[in-house]
Amino acid sequence: MYVLYYSPGSASMVVHAVLLETGTLHQLQLVDFGRNEQHGAGYLKLNPTGMVPTLVVDNVAVQESAALVMLLAERHPEARLAPPAGTSGRAEWLKWTVHLSSHLGGLYRQWFYPSDLGMEDYSVAMRDAVRMKIEGTLERIDGHLAQHGPYLLGNAFSSADLQLTMYMRWARNMPRPATTWPYLNALALRVTARPSWIQMCEIEGLHDWAAAQA
Amino acid sequence: MYVLYYSPGSASMVVHAVLLETGTLHQLQLVDFGRNEQHGAGYLKLNPTGMVPTLVVDNVAVQESAALVMLLAERHPEARLAPPAGTSGRAEWLKWTVHLSSHLGGLYRQWFYPSDLGMEDYSVAMRDAVRMKIEGTLERIDGHLAQHGPYLLGNAFSSADLQLTMYMRWARNMPRPATTWPYLNALALRVTARPSWIQMCEIEGLHDWAAAQA
Ligand SMILES: N[C@@H](CCC(=O)N[C@@H](CS)C(=O)NCC(=O)O)C(=O)O
Ligand SMILES: N[C@@H](CCC(=O)N[C@@H](CS)C(=O)NCC(=O)O)C(=O)O
Repeated sequence: MYVLYYSPGSASMVVHAVLLETGTLHQLQLVDFGRNEQHGAGYLKLNPTGMVPTLVVDNVAVQESAALVMLLAERHPEARLAPPAGTSGRAEWLKWTVHLSSHLGGLYRQWFYPSDLGMEDYSVAMRDAVRMKIEGTLERIDGHLAQHGPYLLGNAFSSADLQLTMYMRWARNMPRPATTWPYLNALALRVTARPSWIQMCEIEGLHDWAAAQA
Repeated sequence: MYVLYYSPGSASMVVHAVLLETGTLHQLQLVDFGRNEQHGAGYLKLNPTGMVPTLVVDNVAVQESAALVMLLAERHPEARLAPPAGTSGRAEWLKWTVHLSSHLGGLYRQWFYPSDLGMEDYSVAMRDAVRMKIEGTLERIDGHLAQHGPYLLGNAFSSADLQLTMYMRWARNMPRPATTWPYLNALALRVTARPSWIQMCEIEGLHDWAAAQA
Protein backbone atom coordinates (compact mmCIF):
# COMPACT_ATOMS: atom_id res chain seq x y z
CA MET A 1 0.00 0.00 0.00
CA TYR A 2 1.31 3.42 -1.01
CA VAL A 3 0.45 6.74 0.62
CA LEU A 4 0.95 9.83 -1.54
CA TYR A 5 1.29 13.22 0.13
CA TYR A 6 0.11 15.65 -2.49
CA SER A 7 -1.12 19.12 -3.32
CA PRO A 8 -3.42 19.48 -6.34
CA GLY A 9 -1.62 20.37 -9.56
CA SER A 10 1.84 20.40 -7.98
CA ALA A 11 4.85 18.13 -8.64
CA SER A 12 2.91 15.32 -6.94
CA MET A 13 0.48 15.09 -9.86
CA VAL A 14 2.81 13.02 -12.01
CA VAL A 15 3.26 10.51 -9.21
CA HIS A 16 -0.52 10.40 -8.79
CA ALA A 17 -0.97 9.75 -12.51
CA VAL A 18 1.70 7.03 -12.43
CA LEU A 19 -0.02 5.34 -9.48
CA LEU A 20 -3.25 5.33 -11.49
CA GLU A 21 -1.40 3.92 -14.51
CA THR A 22 -0.22 0.99 -12.41
CA GLY A 23 -3.70 0.35 -11.05
CA THR A 24 -2.16 -0.27 -7.66
CA LEU A 25 -3.86 0.46 -4.33
CA HIS A 26 -2.91 3.82 -2.85
CA GLN A 27 -4.09 6.43 -0.41
CA LEU A 28 -3.96 10.17 -0.95
CA GLN A 29 -3.06 12.55 1.84
CA LEU A 30 -3.59 16.25 1.15
CA VAL A 31 -0.83 18.66 2.19
CA ASP A 32 -2.68 21.95 2.48
CA PHE A 33 -0.45 24.70 1.06
CA GLY A 34 -3.09 27.27 2.12
CA ARG A 35 -2.28 26.40 5.72
CA ASN A 36 1.44 26.04 4.95
CA GLU A 37 1.26 22.40 6.07
CA GLN A 38 4.28 21.57 3.90
CA HIS A 39 6.40 23.43 6.45
CA GLY A 40 4.68 22.01 9.54
CA ALA A 41 6.73 19.90 11.97
CA GLY A 42 4.75 16.75 11.15
CA TYR A 43 5.30 16.95 7.42
CA LEU A 44 8.96 17.99 7.72
CA LYS A 45 9.59 14.62 9.38
CA LEU A 46 8.42 12.95 6.18
CA ASN A 47 10.13 15.41 3.85
CA PRO A 48 12.76 17.69 5.35
CA THR A 49 12.77 19.89 2.23
CA GLY A 50 9.15 20.92 2.93
CA MET A 51 7.97 20.03 -0.56
CA VAL A 52 5.55 17.61 -2.16
CA PRO A 53 5.46 14.87 -3.28
CA THR A 54 6.36 12.36 -0.62
CA LEU A 55 5.37 8.73 -1.20
CA VAL A 56 5.37 6.28 1.67
CA VAL A 57 6.58 2.95 0.30
CA ASP A 58 6.88 -0.06 2.62
CA ASN A 59 6.69 2.38 5.54
CA VAL A 60 9.59 4.47 4.25
CA ALA A 61 9.00 8.07 3.16
CA VAL A 62 10.54 8.72 -0.26
CA GLN A 63 10.85 12.11 -1.96
CA GLU A 64 11.54 13.59 -5.42
CA SER A 65 8.94 13.12 -8.12
CA ALA A 66 11.41 11.79 -10.71
CA ALA A 67 12.76 9.18 -8.28
CA LEU A 68 9.21 8.11 -7.43
CA VAL A 69 8.28 7.78 -11.09
CA MET A 70 11.34 5.56 -11.65
CA LEU A 71 10.64 3.51 -8.54
CA LEU A 72 7.00 2.87 -9.49
CA ALA A 73 7.90 2.07 -13.10
CA GLU A 74 10.35 -0.54 -11.83
CA ARG A 75 8.01 -2.02 -9.20
CA HIS A 76 5.14 -2.33 -11.68
CA PRO A 77 6.69 -3.53 -14.93
CA GLU A 78 3.29 -4.73 -16.20
CA ALA A 79 2.26 -1.05 -16.51
CA ARG A 80 4.96 -0.64 -19.19
CA LEU A 81 5.91 2.84 -18.11
CA ALA A 82 9.57 2.43 -19.04
CA PRO A 83 11.77 0.39 -21.35
CA PRO A 84 13.15 -2.44 -19.18
CA ALA A 85 16.81 -2.33 -18.13
CA GLY A 86 19.05 -3.59 -20.89
CA THR A 87 16.70 -2.71 -23.74
CA SER A 88 17.11 0.07 -26.25
CA GLY A 89 15.41 3.25 -25.17
CA ARG A 90 16.45 2.70 -21.55
CA ALA A 91 19.23 5.33 -21.63
CA GLU A 92 16.90 7.85 -23.29
CA TRP A 93 14.22 7.22 -20.69
CA LEU A 94 16.66 7.75 -17.82
CA LYS A 95 17.95 10.90 -19.53
CA TRP A 96 14.51 12.43 -20.02
CA THR A 97 13.29 11.49 -16.57
CA VAL A 98 16.27 13.23 -14.95
CA HIS A 99 16.47 16.09 -17.42
CA LEU A 100 12.82 17.12 -17.16
CA SER A 101 13.06 17.11 -13.39
CA SER A 102 16.46 18.82 -13.00
CA HIS A 103 16.26 21.24 -15.85
CA LEU A 104 12.63 22.07 -16.59
CA GLY A 105 11.54 21.46 -12.99
CA GLY A 106 14.36 23.67 -11.76
CA LEU A 107 13.46 26.49 -14.14
CA TYR A 108 9.80 26.44 -13.10
CA ARG A 109 10.90 26.48 -9.48
CA GLN A 110 12.83 29.70 -10.28
CA TRP A 111 9.81 31.15 -12.05
CA PHE A 112 7.36 30.42 -9.26
CA TYR A 113 9.61 30.88 -6.21
CA PRO A 114 11.66 34.12 -6.33
CA SER A 115 11.70 33.62 -2.55
CA ASP A 116 14.30 30.88 -3.12
CA LEU A 117 16.62 33.76 -4.04
CA GLY A 118 15.50 35.82 -1.06
CA MET A 119 13.31 38.06 -3.22
CA GLU A 120 9.65 39.04 -3.16
CA ASP A 121 9.68 39.34 -6.90
CA TYR A 122 12.16 39.56 -9.74
CA SER A 123 13.17 42.52 -11.81
CA VAL A 124 11.65 42.50 -15.28
CA ALA A 125 15.05 41.56 -16.73
CA MET A 126 15.40 38.52 -14.48
CA ARG A 127 11.87 37.36 -15.09
CA ASP A 128 12.50 37.64 -18.81
CA ALA A 129 15.72 35.64 -18.50
CA VAL A 130 13.96 32.76 -16.70
CA ARG A 131 11.07 32.87 -19.13
CA MET A 132 13.44 32.72 -22.09
CA LYS A 133 15.19 29.71 -20.62
CA ILE A 134 11.87 27.91 -20.12
CA GLU A 135 10.77 28.78 -23.64
CA GLY A 136 14.13 27.71 -25.06
CA THR A 137 13.81 24.36 -23.32
CA LEU A 138 10.26 23.82 -24.59
CA GLU A 139 11.41 24.80 -28.08
CA ARG A 140 14.23 22.26 -27.92
CA ILE A 141 11.87 19.50 -26.75
CA ASP A 142 9.35 20.41 -29.46
CA GLY A 143 12.16 20.05 -32.01
CA HIS A 144 13.04 16.64 -30.57
CA LEU A 145 9.40 15.53 -30.88
CA ALA A 146 9.18 16.83 -34.45
CA GLN A 147 12.08 14.56 -35.38
CA HIS A 148 11.64 11.60 -33.05
CA GLY A 149 8.05 11.80 -31.68
CA PRO A 150 5.19 11.54 -31.21
CA TYR A 151 6.31 10.57 -27.67
CA LEU A 152 9.64 11.45 -26.05
CA LEU A 153 10.81 7.90 -26.77
CA GLY A 154 9.31 7.74 -30.24
CA ASN A 155 6.37 5.43 -30.73
CA ALA A 156 6.37 4.16 -27.17
CA PHE A 157 4.53 6.05 -24.45
CA SER A 158 6.48 6.23 -21.17
CA SER A 159 6.29 7.87 -17.77
CA ALA A 160 8.47 10.69 -19.11
CA ASP A 161 5.49 11.83 -21.22
CA LEU A 162 3.42 12.20 -18.05
CA GLN A 163 6.19 14.30 -16.52
CA LEU A 164 6.43 16.48 -19.60
CA THR A 165 2.66 17.02 -19.67
CA MET A 166 2.74 18.12 -16.04
CA TYR A 167 5.47 20.64 -16.79
CA MET A 168 3.56 21.82 -19.86
CA ARG A 169 0.52 22.49 -17.71
CA TRP A 170 2.56 24.69 -15.40
CA ALA A 171 3.12 27.16 -18.25
CA ARG A 172 -0.62 27.63 -18.83
CA ASN A 173 -0.60 31.19 -17.43
CA MET A 174 2.84 32.14 -18.70
CA PRO A 175 3.25 34.60 -21.57
CA ARG A 176 3.68 31.70 -24.00
CA PRO A 177 1.77 28.57 -22.97
CA ALA A 178 3.45 25.26 -23.85
CA THR A 179 0.50 24.20 -26.01
CA THR A 180 1.51 26.82 -28.60
CA TRP A 181 4.34 24.49 -29.70
CA PRO A 182 2.74 22.05 -32.17
CA TYR A 183 4.52 18.81 -31.29
CA LEU A 184 4.27 19.46 -27.57
CA ASN A 185 0.57 20.12 -28.03
CA ALA A 186 0.15 16.87 -29.96
CA LEU A 187 1.89 14.95 -27.19
CA ALA A 188 -0.30 16.59 -24.53
CA LEU A 189 -3.42 15.71 -26.52
CA ARG A 190 -2.48 12.05 -26.36
CA VAL A 191 -1.40 12.07 -22.73
CA THR A 192 -4.39 14.03 -21.41
CA ALA A 193 -6.70 11.53 -23.14
CA ARG A 194 -5.33 8.66 -21.05
CA PRO A 195 -7.66 7.33 -18.35
CA SER A 196 -4.96 7.92 -15.71
CA TRP A 197 -4.65 11.62 -16.54
CA ILE A 198 -8.40 12.14 -16.72
CA GLN A 199 -8.94 10.43 -13.39
CA MET A 200 -6.07 12.30 -11.75
CA CYS A 201 -7.53 15.65 -12.87
CA GLU A 202 -10.96 14.57 -11.66
CA ILE A 203 -9.65 13.65 -8.21
CA GLU A 204 -7.39 16.69 -7.85
CA GLY A 205 -10.04 19.04 -9.28
CA LEU A 206 -7.93 20.32 -12.17
CA HIS A 207 -10.11 21.66 -14.95
CA ASP A 208 -8.26 24.78 -16.06
CA TRP A 209 -6.05 23.44 -18.83
CA ALA A 210 -6.38 21.46 -22.03
CA ALA A 211 -4.35 20.91 -25.15
CA ALA A 212 -5.79 22.44 -28.32
CA GLN A 213 -7.82 19.99 -30.42
CA ALA A 214 -6.11 19.26 -33.71
CA MET B 1 33.00 1.02 -25.50
CA TYR B 2 31.98 4.27 -23.88
CA VAL B 3 33.13 7.77 -24.86
CA LEU B 4 32.89 10.42 -22.16
CA TYR B 5 32.86 14.09 -23.15
CA TYR B 6 34.22 15.86 -20.11
CA SER B 7 35.74 18.98 -18.65
CA PRO B 8 38.05 18.55 -15.64
CA GLY B 9 36.31 18.96 -12.29
CA SER B 10 32.87 19.57 -13.81
CA ALA B 11 29.69 17.51 -13.57
CA SER B 12 31.36 14.93 -15.79
CA MET B 13 33.75 13.93 -13.00
CA VAL B 14 31.22 11.70 -11.25
CA VAL B 15 30.58 9.81 -14.49
CA HIS B 16 34.34 9.45 -14.95
CA ALA B 17 34.70 8.06 -11.41
CA VAL B 18 31.80 5.66 -11.99
CA LEU B 19 33.39 4.42 -15.23
CA LEU B 20 36.59 3.75 -13.29
CA GLU B 21 34.61 1.94 -10.56
CA THR B 22 33.18 -0.41 -13.18
CA GLY B 23 36.60 -1.10 -14.67
CA THR B 24 35.06 -0.92 -18.10
CA LEU B 25 36.83 0.28 -21.23
CA HIS B 26 36.20 3.94 -22.05
CA GLN B 27 37.63 6.86 -23.95
CA LEU B 28 37.82 10.43 -22.72
CA GLN B 29 37.14 13.37 -24.98
CA LEU B 30 37.99 16.81 -23.61
CA VAL B 31 35.46 19.61 -24.14
CA ASP B 32 37.60 22.73 -23.82
CA PHE B 33 35.62 25.34 -21.86
CA GLY B 34 38.47 27.82 -22.42
CA ARG B 35 37.61 27.73 -26.12
CA ASN B 36 33.87 27.55 -25.42
CA GLU B 37 33.75 24.19 -27.20
CA GLN B 38 30.63 23.23 -25.23
CA HIS B 39 28.72 25.73 -27.36
CA GLY B 40 30.32 24.76 -30.66
CA ALA B 41 28.14 23.34 -33.43
CA GLY B 42 29.80 19.93 -33.25
CA TYR B 43 29.24 19.46 -29.54
CA LEU B 44 25.70 20.86 -29.61
CA LYS B 45 24.78 17.95 -31.87
CA LEU B 46 25.78 15.60 -29.06
CA ASN B 47 24.28 17.69 -26.29
CA PRO B 48 21.87 20.45 -27.30
CA THR B 49 22.05 21.99 -23.80
CA GLY B 50 25.73 22.82 -24.33
CA MET B 51 26.81 21.18 -21.10
CA VAL B 52 28.98 18.30 -20.01
CA PRO B 53 28.82 15.40 -19.44
CA THR B 54 27.73 13.52 -22.51
CA LEU B 55 28.39 9.79 -22.66
CA VAL B 56 28.19 7.95 -25.94
CA VAL B 57 26.69 4.53 -25.22
CA ASP B 58 26.16 2.05 -28.07
CA ASN B 59 26.59 4.98 -30.48
CA VAL B 60 23.87 7.02 -28.78
CA ALA B 61 24.76 10.30 -27.02
CA VAL B 62 23.25 10.41 -23.52
CA GLN B 63 23.23 13.43 -21.21
CA GLU B 64 22.62 14.26 -17.54
CA SER B 65 25.17 13.07 -15.00
CA ALA B 66 22.57 11.49 -12.70
CA ALA B 67 21.01 9.53 -15.56
CA LEU B 68 24.46 8.33 -16.63
CA VAL B 69 25.33 7.23 -13.12
CA MET B 70 22.08 5.22 -12.97
CA LEU B 71 22.63 3.75 -16.42
CA LEU B 72 26.18 2.63 -15.65
CA ALA B 73 25.18 1.22 -12.25
CA GLU B 74 22.52 -0.86 -13.97
CA ARG B 75 24.74 -2.00 -16.84
CA HIS B 76 27.56 -3.04 -14.50
CA PRO B 77 25.87 -4.70 -11.52
CA GLU B 78 29.14 -6.40 -10.53
CA ALA B 79 30.50 -2.98 -9.52
CA ARG B 80 27.83 -2.84 -6.79
CA LEU B 81 27.20 0.85 -7.19
CA ALA B 82 23.51 0.59 -6.33
CA PRO B 83 21.11 -1.65 -4.43
CA PRO B 84 19.50 -3.90 -7.09
CA ALA B 85 15.88 -3.27 -8.07
CA GLY B 86 13.51 -4.82 -5.58
CA THR B 87 15.91 -4.71 -2.63
CA SER B 88 15.72 -2.44 0.37
CA GLY B 89 17.70 0.73 -0.10
CA ARG B 90 16.65 0.97 -3.74
CA ALA B 91 14.12 3.76 -3.15
CA GLU B 92 16.64 5.70 -1.06
CA TRP B 93 19.28 5.34 -3.75
CA LEU B 94 16.92 6.64 -6.44
CA LYS B 95 15.89 9.49 -4.15
CA TRP B 96 19.46 10.60 -3.40
CA THR B 97 20.61 10.24 -7.00
CA VAL B 98 17.83 12.51 -8.21
CA HIS B 99 17.86 14.84 -5.24
CA LEU B 100 21.58 15.58 -5.33
CA SER B 101 21.37 16.33 -9.03
CA SER B 102 18.14 18.37 -9.05
CA HIS B 103 18.53 20.16 -5.80
CA LEU B 104 22.22 20.52 -4.94
CA GLY B 105 23.28 20.51 -8.60
CA GLY B 106 20.66 23.15 -9.37
CA LEU B 107 21.79 25.37 -6.50
CA TYR B 108 25.44 25.21 -7.56
CA ARG B 109 24.39 26.05 -11.10
CA GLN B 110 22.74 29.20 -9.67
CA TRP B 111 25.88 30.01 -7.69
CA PHE B 112 28.28 29.62 -10.60
CA TYR B 113 26.08 30.85 -13.47
CA PRO B 114 24.33 34.19 -12.71
CA SER B 115 24.28 34.43 -16.51
CA ASP B 116 21.43 31.87 -16.45
CA LEU B 117 19.37 34.71 -14.97
CA GLY B 118 20.71 37.19 -17.50
CA MET B 119 23.04 38.79 -14.96
CA GLU B 120 26.77 39.46 -14.89
CA ASP B 121 26.75 39.03 -11.15
CA TYR B 122 24.27 38.87 -8.30
CA SER B 123 23.50 41.47 -5.71
CA VAL B 124 24.98 40.66 -2.30
CA ALA B 125 21.50 39.74 -1.04
CA MET B 126 20.90 37.23 -3.84
CA ARG B 127 24.32 35.68 -3.50
CA ASP B 128 23.67 35.29 0.22
CA ALA B 129 20.30 33.68 -0.44
CA VAL B 130 21.81 31.07 -2.77
CA ARG B 131 24.70 30.45 -0.39
CA MET B 132 22.28 29.95 2.51
CA LYS B 133 20.28 27.42 0.50
CA ILE B 134 23.44 25.48 -0.36
CA GLU B 135 24.59 25.55 3.25
CA GLY B 136 21.13 24.54 4.47
CA THR B 137 21.17 21.57 2.11
CA LEU B 138 24.66 20.49 3.23
CA GLU B 139 23.57 20.87 6.85
CA ARG B 140 20.53 18.66 6.23
CA ILE B 141 22.64 15.99 4.53
CA ASP B 142 25.20 16.14 7.34
CA GLY B 143 22.35 15.54 9.80
CA HIS B 144 21.20 12.57 7.75
CA LEU B 145 24.73 11.11 7.80
CA ALA B 146 25.03 11.68 11.56
CA GLN B 147 21.94 9.52 12.06
CA HIS B 148 22.13 7.05 9.21
CA GLY B 149 25.74 7.20 7.90
CA PRO B 150 28.58 6.77 7.32
CA TYR B 151 27.40 6.60 3.68
CA LEU B 152 24.17 8.07 2.29
CA LEU B 153 22.67 4.57 2.31
CA GLY B 154 24.14 3.62 5.69
CA ASN B 155 26.86 1.00 5.70
CA ALA B 156 26.78 0.45 1.97
CA PHE B 157 28.79 2.66 -0.37
CA SER B 158 26.91 3.62 -3.53
CA SER B 159 27.27 5.86 -6.55
CA ALA B 160 25.35 8.55 -4.67
CA ASP B 161 28.39 9.00 -2.42
CA LEU B 162 30.51 9.80 -5.47
CA GLN B 163 27.94 12.37 -6.56
CA LEU B 164 27.87 13.93 -3.11
CA THR B 165 31.67 14.14 -2.97
CA MET B 166 31.72 15.90 -6.32
CA TYR B 167 29.22 18.47 -5.07
CA MET B 168 31.21 18.87 -1.84
CA ARG B 169 34.31 19.66 -3.85
CA TRP B 170 32.49 22.42 -5.70
CA ALA B 171 32.13 24.35 -2.42
CA ARG B 172 35.88 24.37 -1.81
CA ASN B 173 36.19 28.12 -2.49
CA MET B 174 32.83 29.10 -1.02
CA PRO B 175 32.62 30.99 2.27
CA ARG B 176 31.89 27.74 4.09
CA PRO B 177 33.53 24.70 2.47
CA ALA B 178 31.57 21.45 2.73
CA THR B 179 34.39 19.74 4.62
CA THR B 180 33.60 21.89 7.66
CA TRP B 181 30.57 19.64 8.34
CA PRO B 182 31.93 16.66 10.27
CA TYR B 183 29.88 13.82 8.81
CA LEU B 184 30.22 15.14 5.28
CA ASN B 185 33.97 15.37 5.80
CA ALA B 186 34.07 11.79 7.09
CA LEU B 187 32.19 10.59 4.00
CA ALA B 188 34.54 12.51 1.70
CA LEU B 189 37.55 11.01 3.46
CA ARG B 190 36.28 7.53 2.61
CA VAL B 191 35.26 8.34 -0.94
CA THR B 192 38.41 10.25 -1.90
CA ALA B 193 40.49 7.27 -0.69
CA ARG B 194 38.89 4.99 -3.28
CA PRO B 195 41.10 4.00 -6.21
CA SER B 196 38.49 5.32 -8.67
CA TRP B 197 38.50 8.79 -7.14
CA ILE B 198 42.29 8.94 -6.88
CA GLN B 199 42.71 7.87 -10.49
CA MET B 200 40.01 10.25 -11.72
CA CYS B 201 41.77 13.19 -9.99
CA GLU B 202 45.09 12.07 -11.41
CA ILE B 203 43.73 11.95 -14.97
CA GLU B 204 41.75 15.20 -14.71
CA GLY B 205 44.58 16.98 -12.89
CA LEU B 206 42.56 17.87 -9.79
CA HIS B 207 44.83 18.44 -6.81
CA ASP B 208 43.27 21.42 -5.12
CA TRP B 209 40.92 19.80 -2.63
CA ALA B 210 41.06 17.22 0.11
CA ALA B 211 38.95 16.25 3.09
CA ALA B 212 40.48 17.02 6.50
CA GLN B 213 42.25 14.04 8.05
CA ALA B 214 40.45 12.85 11.16
N1 LIG C 1 12.41 18.33 -7.06
C1 LIG C 1 11.14 18.25 -6.38
C2 LIG C 1 10.44 19.60 -6.42
C3 LIG C 1 9.16 19.61 -5.67
C4 LIG C 1 8.53 21.01 -5.58
O1 LIG C 1 9.14 22.02 -5.97
N2 LIG C 1 7.29 21.03 -5.06
C5 LIG C 1 6.58 22.28 -4.87
C6 LIG C 1 5.22 22.23 -5.53
S1 LIG C 1 5.34 22.02 -7.27
C7 LIG C 1 6.33 22.50 -3.39
O2 LIG C 1 6.16 21.54 -2.64
N3 LIG C 1 6.24 23.76 -2.98
C8 LIG C 1 5.91 24.14 -1.65
C9 LIG C 1 6.94 25.05 -1.05
O3 LIG C 1 8.09 25.13 -1.54
O4 LIG C 1 6.59 25.71 -0.04
C10 LIG C 1 10.27 17.16 -7.01
O5 LIG C 1 10.26 17.07 -8.25
O6 LIG C 1 9.65 16.38 -6.27
N1 LIG D 1 22.18 18.66 -14.96
C1 LIG D 1 23.46 18.59 -15.68
C2 LIG D 1 24.25 19.85 -15.38
C3 LIG D 1 25.55 19.91 -16.14
C4 LIG D 1 26.28 21.23 -15.97
O1 LIG D 1 25.78 22.20 -15.36
N2 LIG D 1 27.53 21.24 -16.51
C5 LIG D 1 28.35 22.44 -16.45
C6 LIG D 1 29.71 22.14 -15.81
S1 LIG D 1 29.57 21.61 -14.16
C7 LIG D 1 28.65 22.92 -17.86
O2 LIG D 1 28.73 22.11 -18.78
N3 LIG D 1 28.84 24.21 -18.01
C8 LIG D 1 29.22 24.82 -19.24
C9 LIG D 1 28.28 25.92 -19.65
O3 LIG D 1 27.13 26.00 -19.12
O4 LIG D 1 28.68 26.71 -20.50
C10 LIG D 1 24.22 17.32 -15.29
O5 LIG D 1 24.22 17.01 -14.08
O6 LIG D 1 24.77 16.67 -16.16
